Amino acid sequence: MKARVIVTLKNGVLDPQGQAIEGSLAGLGFAGVAGVRQGKVFDLEVSGTDEEAARSQIKEMCEKLLANTVIENYAIEISP
Amino acid sequence: MKARVIVTLKNGVLDPQGQAIEGSLAGLGFAGVAGVRQGKVFDLEVSGTDEEAARSQIKEMCEKLLANTVIENYAIEISP
Repeated sequence: MKARVIVTLKNGVLDPQGQAIEGSLAGLGFAGVAGVRQGKVFDLEVSGTDEEAARSQIKEMCEKLLANTVIENYAIEISP
Repeated sequence: MKARVIVTLKNGVLDPQGQAIEGSLAGLGFAGVAGVRQGKVFDLEVSGTDEEAARSQIKEMCEKLLANTVIENYAIEISP
């Protein structure tokens, strides 16, 4: 089944990349854009049909590799 | 209102970063994981309350800055 993991910086963690994008958007003439934060998304396929098992496996992947849980949050979406 | 833009590589575009992650996951003992692709996510706030106007503004941001539409797709999610 297919899964999507979205990793975002926790609130309060500085995001210079997001700030740079915000500055660039303003420079391009887009007004009223604020609070730009950049994160990562991982699309992956896991074998098996048990959604709960897949979710717990992906959670472990996030804790071990995909996210730095000191500064990042992650969200897991699973579609059959 | 808040918006999330998800930028992913188009099918067929090589993703060495995703392949490296897939290899690392296998090395960590996660079996049955395939097709790992990495993308980007942007969270931003736009002023105004007109969802359609916001969507069209963000679409323009994607075309001009956030995504490289030659090799990347983008999806826009807006929440009030």
